[in-house]
This record gives sequence, C-alpha cells and structure tokens, in this order.
Amino acid sequence: MSKINLKNKRNMSMLMDFYELTMSNGYFKNGLKDKVVYFDVFFRKVPENGGFALMAGLEQVIEYIEGLKFDEDDIDYLRSKNCLDEEFLQYLSSFKFTGDIYAFEEGTPIFPNEPILTVKAPVIEAQLIETMILLTLNHQSLITTKSNRIVRAANGRGVMEFGARRSQGYDGAIYGARAAYIGGVIATATTLAGQVFGIPVSGTMAHSWVQLFEDEYTAFKTYAENYPDSSTFLVDTYSVLQSGVPNAIKVSKEVLEPMGCRLKGIRLDSGDMAYLSIKARKMLDEAGLTDCKIVASNSLDEYTITSLFNQGAKIDLFGVGERLVTSKAEPVFGGVYKLVAVENENMEPEARIKISENAEKVSNPGHKKVYRFFDKDSNKAICDVITLAHEVIDINKPYTIFDPVHIWKKKKLKNFYVKELQVPIFKNGEVVYTSPCLNDIRSYCLSQVNTLWEEVTRFENPHTFYVDLSKELWTLKDNMIKKYSNEE
Amino acid sequence: MSKINLKNKRNMSMLMDFYELTMSNGYFKNGLKDKVVYFDVFFRKVPENGGFALMAGLEQVIEYIEGLKFDEDDIDYLRSKNCLDEEFLQYLSSFKFTGDIYAFEEGTPIFPNEPILTVKAPVIEAQLIETMILLTLNHQSLITTKSNRIVRAANGRGVMEFGARRSQGYDGAIYGARAAYIGGVIATATTLAGQVFGIPVSGTMAHSWVQLFEDEYTAFKTYAENYPDSSTFLVDTYSVLQSGVPNAIKVSKEVLEPMGCRLKGIRLDSGDMAYLSIKARKMLDEAGLTDCKIVASNSLDEYTITSLFNQGAKIDLFGVGERLVTSKAEPVFGGVYKLVAVENENMEPEARIKISENAEKVSNPGHKKVYRFFDKDSNKAICDVITLAHEVIDINKPYTIFDPVHIWKKKKLKNFYVKELQVPIFKNGEVVYTSPCLNDIRSYCLSQVNTLWEEVTRFENPHTFYVDLSKELWTLKDNMIKKYSNEE
Repeated sequence: MSKINLKNKRNMSMLMDFYELTMSNGYFKNGLKDKVVYFDVFFRKVPENGGFALMAGLEQVIEYIEGLKFDEDDIDYLRSKNCLDEEFLQYLSSFKFTGDIYAFEEGTPIFPNEPILTVKAPVIEAQLIETMILLTLNHQSLITTKSNRIVRAANGRGVMEFGARRSQGYDGAIYGARAAYIGGVIATATTLAGQVFGIPVSGTMAHSWVQLFEDEYTAFKTYAENYPDSSTFLVDTYSVLQSGVPNAIKVSKEVLEPMGCRLKGIRLDSGDMAYLSIKARKMLDEAGLTDCKIVASNSLDEYTITSLFNQGAKIDLFGVGERLVTSKAEPVFGGVYKLVAVENENMEPEARIKISENAEKVSNPGHKKVYRFFDKDSNKAICDVITLAHEVIDINKPYTIFDPVHIWKKKKLKNFYVKELQVPIFKNGEVVYTSPCLNDIRSYCLSQVNTLWEEVTRFENPHTFYVDLSKELWTLKDNMIKKYSNEE
Repeated sequence: MSKINLKNKRNMSMLMDFYELTMSNGYFKNGLKDKVVYFDVFFRKVPENGGFALMAGLEQVIEYIEGLKFDEDDIDYLRSKNCLDEEFLQYLSSFKFTGDIYAFEEGTPIFPNEPILTVKAPVIEAQLIETMILLTLNHQSLITTKSNRIVRAANGRGVMEFGARRSQGYDGAIYGARAAYIGGVIATATTLAGQVFGIPVSGTMAHSWVQLFEDEYTAFKTYAENYPDSSTFLVDTYSVLQSGVPNAIKVSKEVLEPMGCRLKGIRLDSGDMAYLSIKARKMLDEAGLTDCKIVASNSLDEYTITSLFNQGAKIDLFGVGERLVTSKAEPVFGGVYKLVAVENENMEPEARIKISENAEKVSNPGHKKVYRFFDKDSNKAICDVITLAHEVIDINKPYTIFDPVHIWKKKKLKNFYVKELQVPIFKNGEVVYTSPCLNDIRSYCLSQVNTLWEEVTRFENPHTFYVDLSKELWTLKDNMIKKYSNEE
C-alpha cells in the first residue's frame, strides 16, 4: 500500500492562494516571522439543512504538511512574480512546519462554529497552509456528509459509489471515493481508489457490452459464460420488461443454472425505477429467481431513494454517481480558517476576533477546545461545549449550558461523561497521531452517527444539536464584540 | 514549463470504472480484442438552462492517453481481484492505445447531442479510456462554461478566480483554474495553477493580516510600506464604512501619496455589496482617490453580479470563488460515452443504437461528423449539422435543414460557409494535434462565443441553437428506432 501511495503522492506545496505568500513576505519583512498565532477551521452551516456534518480528510492534511517543501522550480517561479523579497524566498527554500495542530478525528459528527482543526504556529507557517487545509477538509467532509445521508436513506440496503466520470477532477473521484466510503458506501467503481485505499471495487457491464453483440441474449449469455459466479446484467439497453428481464431469465435458465450457478442481479439504469423494479421483481420471482438482486443506478440520491421506497420499489442495491461524488444539491462545504489568537510576551494566547457586517460571520475568539457531552445511560450525545483551552470539565458536578444568543435559556446537565474532540496531530512540527486504517475510520464514523438522537439525524427540519460556549468563552467574546461595536 | 508539467504529471491509467476491466476481460476472452468500434462523447443538456456550453479539457485527455500504461503494481492489484484472466493481465501489461480520436477544439461552443469527441479503436482500448475521457471533459467543460457565464455577466469588468479552498479536491482547484481561465477570467489566486499553466496570479491580504496587527490602520500602513505599488486593502474586518475605508484613505494620504504611489484598490468581502460599494466609492472619490478600484468577493456568481449592477453597485473587479470553481448552481456536466458503430468485415462502420426507456436518451447512431454553418456576411453561427462521416457539404448549393422531431419544419440555407468541428487528435495511436497555448485557447474561446447571436447567449430563456441531423443520418436513426421499437 505505501508503495502505491508514494507513486501517487504529489507535492502540493504550491497549491495555495497567492495572498498567503504576499502576506507571509510582509510578515517576514516586518519581523513577525516568529510570532506565534492560532488559527481555527470551522464552518457555519450544515449542507442541505442537515442536522450534522462529518469530519474527513485529516489523513491527507497530515500527508500534505509532512511533505511541505519548496524546491528550486517553485522558488524560481515565485521570484518571477517580482513582488517577494529574496530573503523571504531563501527562507521558503528551507521551509519546514514547526507548529502544533489539533483536530477532530475523521468520521466525527461536526457542527457549525466548532474549531474542527486548530493550528498553533509561527504566523508564516500557519498562513501558508491555509488553502490546502481548507480544500482538503472542505472536500472530503462534504462528500462524507453526503454519502452518509444517502446511506441512511437506503436504510440497510447497500450503496455503491459510481461517480468518477462526473466528478470535479481526478482527485474529486479518488478522494471522493475515500470520503464516500467513510460515510458508509460499501464499494466504489473507481479502480484507482480501490488500489490506493483498499476500498472494495465493483463493476460488471455497461450498455456498450450489450450493444457490441448481435443481440441482448448473446451479450448476457457471453457474460454469464465468462463470469458465472458474478453475473449482473444491465437490462435497459433496449426494453427492460420486453427484452432485458426476459433475456436475463433465459440466460439464467439456459447457462447459469445448468452450471450450478445463480443469477446475481439485474441493473436498471433508466426509466421509471419504481414501476420497472416492481414488475421485474415479479418476473424474476415467478421464474424462481427470488435471490436475484435488483440494482438501480440512475441519478439517485437520498431524496429519490426515499421516494422509491415510498412507492414500493423493489430495489436491493443502489449505484449512486454524480449526486454523491459532487454533492450535487449543495456542492460546497464552507469551512473557513480564521485567526483567533496571537501569542503575547508571556507566551499566552491573546484572543483576536473578526467582527464583519454579517452577524453570523463573527468568529469565536481565543485558543479553545471542544467537549462532547454524552448521557451516561444511553451513550447518546447531549451537546458540545466550546471552552477556552485551559478549562476543564468536572464530570462529577452538574454543568450548566446556556444558549449563546438567548442566554436566559439554560439547562443543567447531570449524569454525563465528556470526550475532548480535538486530539493532538502535530507537536513542534512532528506528527504525533497515527491515522486509523480506512475501515476503522468508517466504522468509527458509523458508530458516532449512532450516538446522535434521531431528531438530529432526520432530513426534514432536524433538531439543532446544541453547541454552546462556556461562560468564560462567552464573556470574552461578548466583551470583544462590545469593544469593536459602534457604541464605543 | 514542460519540466513543471512533468513534475505534476501522474499516471492516471488506473482511474477507471472497474466495469471497463470486467468488460474488457470478457472481450479478450471472446476473441473480440481487435474488433474496431466507434464511441461518441456527447451531453444532453446545457447546465443552468443556458444556450450553449464550452469544450475544455482536451489537452489533458491527450496527456492521459499518451501516458497510458499499467505497471507491475497495477497488474498485481488487478490480479488480486480474482476475476480477470492471466492472459488479459499480460495483454494489459503491454497495453498501448493504437486508435484514432477526433474532437472539437478547446474553447468551442458545444451543444447537446453533438459528438464532441469520437474514438475509433479496438474495443478494449476504446472501453478502457471511457472514464478518464468523460471525467476530464465533464469537469473542465463545466467550469469553462460557468466561468464564461460569470465573465459575460461582469460585462467588461475583470473577474478573478478565487475558489481553491472550496474546490472538490486538488485537481478541482488546479484544472478548475485552467478551465476558468479559458472561459475568460483574467487571473487566479491559485499559485500552482499559475506555475503549471502560466495563468496570471493575484492576491493581496486576508482578514488575518488585519487582525495580526494592533489595529487596522497599522495593518494597512505596514502593507502599504511593503507593497507601495500594489496595495489593495481588505476593508471589512471591523466595519467597512466606519473604519475600513477611512483607514484605507488615511494610509493612502499618509504613506502612499508621499511616496508618489496610488492606492490600487479596496476589497469588500461581506455585507451589502451594493450599498457598501456606493458609499465607499463616494468616500474614495471625495478623498481624490477616483482611480482606486473597488473589488468585491463574497459568494458571487452571474446572478449576484447582474443584481449588483442593477442596484447601481460601484464595483470594478470581482473575485469569484466557490460558485465558479464548483459551478455551484449545477455542479455536474452530463457528458456520456456511447457505442455508435462497430466495424464490419469490409472495415466499414456499422451503426449501433441505444434505445432506452427515456426518449431523450436515444443516441445518434453511426460514425459521424459535425459541420458548423456560418453566415458569410455576419460571420455569425447559424446552426450545426451532424452528418455521417462520409458526407460532404457543398457550400455552393443551398442546404436544407430540418427539425429532427418535427420534420416538416424546414429551412433552406444560402450564403454560408462551414467549418468541420471535429479535428484529428490521434491517428493509429499517435498524436497528430498540438494543443495551442492556454492564452490562444482562451482567445479562441472568447472569439467563438462572439460568433453566437445574443439570443443564444442570454441567460433567460435563450434561443435554442439548431443542431440538426443530415437527411441520411436522420433516416438511418429512424429506421433503427423502428427496428427496435415495440411495433415490430
């Protein structure tokens, strides 16, 4: 595996917004190179008005930061822009990340305004890695979140990821398959994702196979002879009910059954899936093929899958393409990277805030951490509380949470345990975290989704999971807003 | 440039749907390896109900096919799937594409159902390259089409691509910037895209720069001292009108003007852009900074830009991010790859068709080409006609086009010249086409969009550009549909 990973590893050091460089050059010239700062990654809104999102992409963030390096070509290119100083370019040529990173583990349910990743580093280092951290987490968190929605809609039936041909670039397919797998799909059609990440791959035939032979019967027959143990026929090249299903049954009887094999499945890729699957199921059952699965694969997502079930569709497996791999209904995960603190002379984080004209864009200041509260009896997640980094939650005492906007809304929590959601990833530039294998990340993800109440996971008007601020953090923020507001 | 390209070149041979391999293994076992077939790439619907789309990604398709190669690791991985034959794996290990490819040039306006790329090759070769061809063309054509929409809405004001952090994977950012540039943006923020493709890069400061200094004034002052010739200040960290713009003006007076420099611009990234830009413009003008540009950059696209102009916004430059780089409003370009002909014993293409339950999914059969008709006087595009490959249009005679559905709707064309849109890309496995440099592709694209009538390019209910079939092609298709339809 590592060999294959290496083959596909690219140095992404230059994948950054150019302003990271103009700013860093400025920091460098103004003696701020060693100024230690804190940046948080957080997002503001769950895609598709869902109740939660899922963290993914951390493993690739780690790989990127470990491999960060500007080679001679890079420096030459930057020099050619004629706006960066030679001393800064020299500094870049021996650049190495030396800071700390804390982050939520992959597969963790995440909510708006939580610091899902925090960087503490000298300002240039922290600034230069902004674009890649956001790009990586935004992309994979988006797809994992979407995948899990579709998987939950499928309600125990398997979902396969089929989207490579419609994905937004090669990495959209490769890392999209990885993210989809974390979210719960059982397989991908993308061979390279299978090779690199060990995801199960699946695939049988396209319309071209059927068209290449003189007729549909011969096409199915030939496939059955070649793959007697894994035949799934695509039955909609000509007419599903008049030719596709009858030919599939005929080949099952004439080719597979005499060999002691069973027809594994038929696949519908167009037309009215509810009507066709019900009719096809009946035909298959009447022919004794009750164990033959029906696979559906035409522009599916959680909405169409739910609708198909409501119509009584007889579908056992879903192949989901473009709407999963691009998160078509909402293709952007809006994670941002904001400066929240600057280290003072005593090496303590001094909080910073971004006010903005849009109230919801006001950031949570300071170096923070996040505690997830779980109910001791049910093991269900109760709420998250964002605190300043030095705060410790005493699980032996009741803990009062309050709404950060309507502060009179309070609730006293008892009988809980807590989990710190940020774990150390880098310490002084060295990785101190080992990413679990992909199957473990996937299992962790599915188990963590199960800690959420159904009210939070439903698609329609989900209950808002509480993400509150500790009293100390709330007070700090309130004071800073007042300081910058117009009244003063 | 080539050195840099090489550095970033990856072998994408394994990026394919697994069914390409199961089918190819089947073709191999059944002696169909050398069967020559024809596949067309076409799409069915212009994104966002636009009047046209734009072709992009061909250069990357060429690079991919030239580099196609399965190495030992790849073969080992495929062997481990336990469903492909050893002879086939041996064949793959010395695989080379030997076929022909014809395609529309990058930057060409494209319309539904046209074969924008045609592959003629032995069936295994043609099958294995399906996923990558679709992925590449779908992604870049989507983004070029979107970019051009935004650029047209900006109506002569410059548009810069700022989307890397929200793009779907690394290639979403890199090739997204390339595609956006073809569509007409003037610059990208993505440094790597500048390095690899020579696209102009731009960038000045983020909120973190402003936050790092003790106050906004000091932040602007420091930036101005470092970059006196290229200062654009981000003015919304605290309050645009009460602090951002006043501080920008102050720094212009106190720092830039004494050095003989001018304030280049201010950037708005939140709030009511129409209101703020009008107020800011007034403040800048009253301070004598009439040449200071106002840049806007908060969740923009062609719709918000049009609306801003309608509200009288005073914006000179747009920075467009997530809605461009993901084509947020419609993030999928639905190009498909369909078998249209199989070579017979006389080495002639014998047409194939895919019927499907959905009428609009019935493909155009046979080996075809596409002629674009231009009016001799205005040089405007009149229509496209898809013909069989052997057909020649005599430009000295009137040519009658007819609607493929309502065939009584006819039109006789005179005073025209034609352009064949498919050009040879590969011949017998060798590249016979040289991709123009990116700037030339971009110029070609913008000039070709100008050949379309305004009725076709408008956003609301654009006129449908005629894409007709020649009489011979229409008759062939009609006969094939009848053959497969239920009546027979």
